[in-house]
Amino acid sequence: MATWWGWGERDARLEAGANAVIAELERRWGPLPRAPESAITLAPTDQRIVATLRDRLGRDLVREDDDARRRHSIGQSYPELRDARRGRVARAPLAVVVPRSSGEVKAALAAAQAIGIAALPYGGGTSVTGGVAGPDDPYVVVSLRAMRSLQDVDAASQLARVDAGMTGPELEAALASHGLTLGHYPQSFERSTVGGWIATRSVGQLSTGVGSIADLAVGMRVVAPTGDVVLPAQPPASEGPDLRELMLGSEGRFGVITDATLRVRPRPETRRADAWLCASFAEGADVVRRLLQSGIAPEMARLSDEVESAMQGVPGGALLVIAHEGSAADVERVAQRVASVVGSAARSLGSAAAMRWYETRYDAPYLRDALLERDVLADSLETATTWSRLADVYAATRRALASRLDAQGRAIVLCHLSHAYAIGASLYFTFLAPGGDDAEVRWREAKRAALDAIVGNGGVVSHHHGIGRDHREWVADRYGGYAARVVDGVATAFDPGRVLAGNRSGRARTTPEGGR
Amino acid sequence: MATWWGWGERDARLEAGANAVIAELERRWGPLPRAPESAITLAPTDQRIVATLRDRLGRDLVREDDDARRRHSIGQSYPELRDARRGRVARAPLAVVVPRSSGEVKAALAAAQAIGIAALPYGGGTSVTGGVAGPDDPYVVVSLRAMRSLQDVDAASQLARVDAGMTGPELEAALASHGLTLGHYPQSFERSTVGGWIATRSVGQLSTGVGSIADLAVGMRVVAPTGDVVLPAQPPASEGPDLRELMLGSEGRFGVITDATLRVRPRPETRRADAWLCASFAEGADVVRRLLQSGIAPEMARLSDEVESAMQGVPGGALLVIAHEGSAADVERVAQRVASVVGSAARSLGSAAAMRWYETRYDAPYLRDALLERDVLADSLETATTWSRLADVYAATRRALASRLDAQGRAIVLCHLSHAYAIGASLYFTFLAPGGDDAEVRWREAKRAALDAIVGNGGVVSHHHGIGRDHREWVADRYGGYAARVVDGVATAFDPGRVLAGNRSGRARTTPEGGR
Repeated sequence: MATWWGWGERDARLEAGANAVIAELERRWGPLPRAPESAITLAPTDQRIVATLRDRLGRDLVREDDDARRRHSIGQSYPELRDARRGRVARAPLAVVVPRSSGEVKAALAAAQAIGIAALPYGGGTSVTGGVAGPDDPYVVVSLRAMRSLQDVDAASQLARVDAGMTGPELEAALASHGLTLGHYPQSFERSTVGGWIATRSVGQLSTGVGSIADLAVGMRVVAPTGDVVLPAQPPASEGPDLRELMLGSEGRFGVITDATLRVRPRPETRRADAWLCASFAEGADVVRRLLQSGIAPEMARLSDEVESAMQGVPGGALLVIAHEGSAADVERVAQRVASVVGSAARSLGSAAAMRWYETRYDAPYLRDALLERDVLADSLETATTWSRLADVYAATRRALASRLDAQGRAIVLCHLSHAYAIGASLYFTFLAPGGDDAEVRWREAKRAALDAIVGNGGVVSHHHGIGRDHREWVADRYGGYAARVVDGVATAFDPGRVLAGNRSGRARTTPEGGR
Repeated sequence: MATWWGWGERDARLEAGANAVIAELERRWGPLPRAPESAITLAPTDQRIVATLRDRLGRDLVREDDDARRRHSIGQSYPELRDARRGRVARAPLAVVVPRSSGEVKAALAAAQAIGIAALPYGGGTSVTGGVAGPDDPYVVVSLRAMRSLQDVDAASQLARVDAGMTGPELEAALASHGLTLGHYPQSFERSTVGGWIATRSVGQLSTGVGSIADLAVGMRVVAPTGDVVLPAQPPASEGPDLRELMLGSEGRFGVITDATLRVRPRPETRRADAWLCASFAEGADVVRRLLQSGIAPEMARLSDEVESAMQGVPGGALLVIAHEGSAADVERVAQRVASVVGSAARSLGSAAAMRWYETRYDAPYLRDALLERDVLADSLETATTWSRLADVYAATRRALASRLDAQGRAIVLCHLSHAYAIGASLYFTFLAPGGDDAEVRWREAKRAALDAIVGNGGVVSHHHGIGRDHREWVADRYGGYAARVVDGVATAFDPGRVLAGNRSGRARTTPEGGR
């Protein structure tokens, strides 16, 4: 079942889940036959460049076979996956370089610069916003996946230094052998990497407790074209702007993140989840707000709107799932405090229903594959805003998506609030609509309308999916135009020769494609 | 008693405290007669420039009297105060502009640029690191002190938008009328301003609970020479590097911070403090580490080393003061959890001794004035590092200070750990030595030796005092030289004409005075 572009093999449980969703969609929309899939033929690479790379870097570090180039040509955005199924990729690297050390990363950047091509850092390739889409210029991919060791543990300071190419499972397995955990679980956990998390300011599902990668990655090494930037793990400092914060969200424009020092903690003794039914999404949001503003931070507070709750088999309100991890005593204490706030405003649905969340928490990308195989338009987008603007952003975004996705009103828009703060929360929209030849056009119009609605109502362009190629025009004129101007200024300090793909044509945020 | 350069009038309590310290020093060092003080004469200002400023900005906005120029010519660093007492200031502004709005700040920068002079933003003038020392070029001060209103409260999101020129007491009084508090209490609270806190990444005394200004200032307006940068309050975003983080610690190089949106919370119902005696500073640090790593964060955990504890009348160990604020139930719960960790490793000294900390927490700058009046060399410096390096940084810094401050071994070096994190903590050194004509030379040598020791052992250049003129050479070559290079690149994006004083000769970090 798994194809080169897909997320992964679906086991019996995932297949059953996918079939149930497809059956529900067929009930609403009519038959969804299996869409044809086309093989893909890449344009041949430039063998002279490949030979030069091999000369400079060594034979083992360079792959130019079709399989490697194809797998590193796209991420996981809707248009990329849709095109790939149809035998098209917009751009492909000339070769994939797989360095084993920061020194070899440095050599790879130098080689690209000498040849005059761009270099694109690539971790797990899980970006859903065109974050690993190539530049319009010829380029080589620098894959971090050969760098995946746990380098060092400082137990007293609860710090672990790790290679940036480790995926979530690789990282957690290595930490587990020391009795430690990071606790960062984005939905892409199985495939995304430490470096990618830092480059995009990733937020895990349990971020309400443990924090985002911005709270967890306290040190890092970044190989910039102008030299290594070593940011040691240290407490906050008053040494001018925090360079670490500059690298968080840099999306490959300042350098290649090759290692990270992460805040770790003892593995949790126990985990627990409780489900509650709130009268409405608005009332549920108010409950979550009061929790956070009371200083009560469970690991996760995830509130589905009425549509999403009904799709999950819980009709008649808004499903709230609260998750706890830690020592048995801590879990019990926080769960009691949560109950004291939530209990007065919501009906308890018990623990069993909530624990199912743990079982299915990485399912979405597998399900999307199944839907794409039936030519369903299936994607998500997300934002965050303050509590006082949340209802407006929610309503405007939902309206924009539904109206543009399908003129006949068949689109399904689900939403959940999954990352809460004292000042506001994230909103994550999942949307489904019938496919067809114009699906990508409708997707583009819906996404444009939704982002306009989000930004117009005071939401952020993205809470945790990043910018990539897809969001840069909305980011370009943020904050009086400084979001792009400042990043360009900093990129010049790290990459004056514009060897990094993010600073090349078609990628740099100050030169958006198309008018707006 | 208060002079133009001093911190403020000493009441009877402060005077008694100062006399007790002086008596103790006289017991050790012999008589400390009152040092003579000299009047100060400023070079006349350039009346043509003043007239041009008045023409462009309006008569009311420009002050060129000696009193205004003198008061804005220095901060609160040891050499600045010492020189001022002796009738010398190194640099003075041509005039002090006092805008009442961000529009008037913009006009002030434009006027300075048109005239060809630099502009130096000035809040409370409390920098102890030369942060408000002028550039070598002619300059005008832009005082934020006419901008001190509470603009807006968003109660649902627990946010308050305030003018940057408000001091701590002004801010807290305005918030109190809404039942709210910020809870940011640096030692300079009485005089420092919101804008200054942001510009230096300020950390309040209760930061272990409430966080630093970096956690509290979630939005701001910065008037840059190239235009206004409006960063609205919003939850974390994945929109590239966080521009808000770039402004935190910018020390006037990117623009003038004119307002801020701050995270606020209900005023605490109650406060409580408990004192404990730990066997040693090292054992006490271990207790604080275990507290933070257990996820127990009281508002403050302040541990004095053996020397400082003895000076505070608690000999034979290390004094640990834990402070709590919040609802009665929250305070009780956290205090119990703290006791469960601390109780097994330290002896309780009760609450009364600890509550005295609240009474005296802003005393230090008043006491320093009294010591300077007796020509005592009195200053402080601070750093932070990871738990695993804390003992080395502590020992090396203490040794460096003591050996350079006084060849006869009379220097007194006190230290406390006052801001704790899961990964490490701050160390704050206070040092006293006999004065004399060579006091400034000894101060400079001690500070240089201490900073070399700090950086060499993995400490940060400053945890919360900032860079100013005094620390820039240590910051310049941090992180492979990028600390300065990147900031210069960003400064170019915001201030290409170099009108801001921090980007002028004698101030820009890439051109340190003197060799190193």
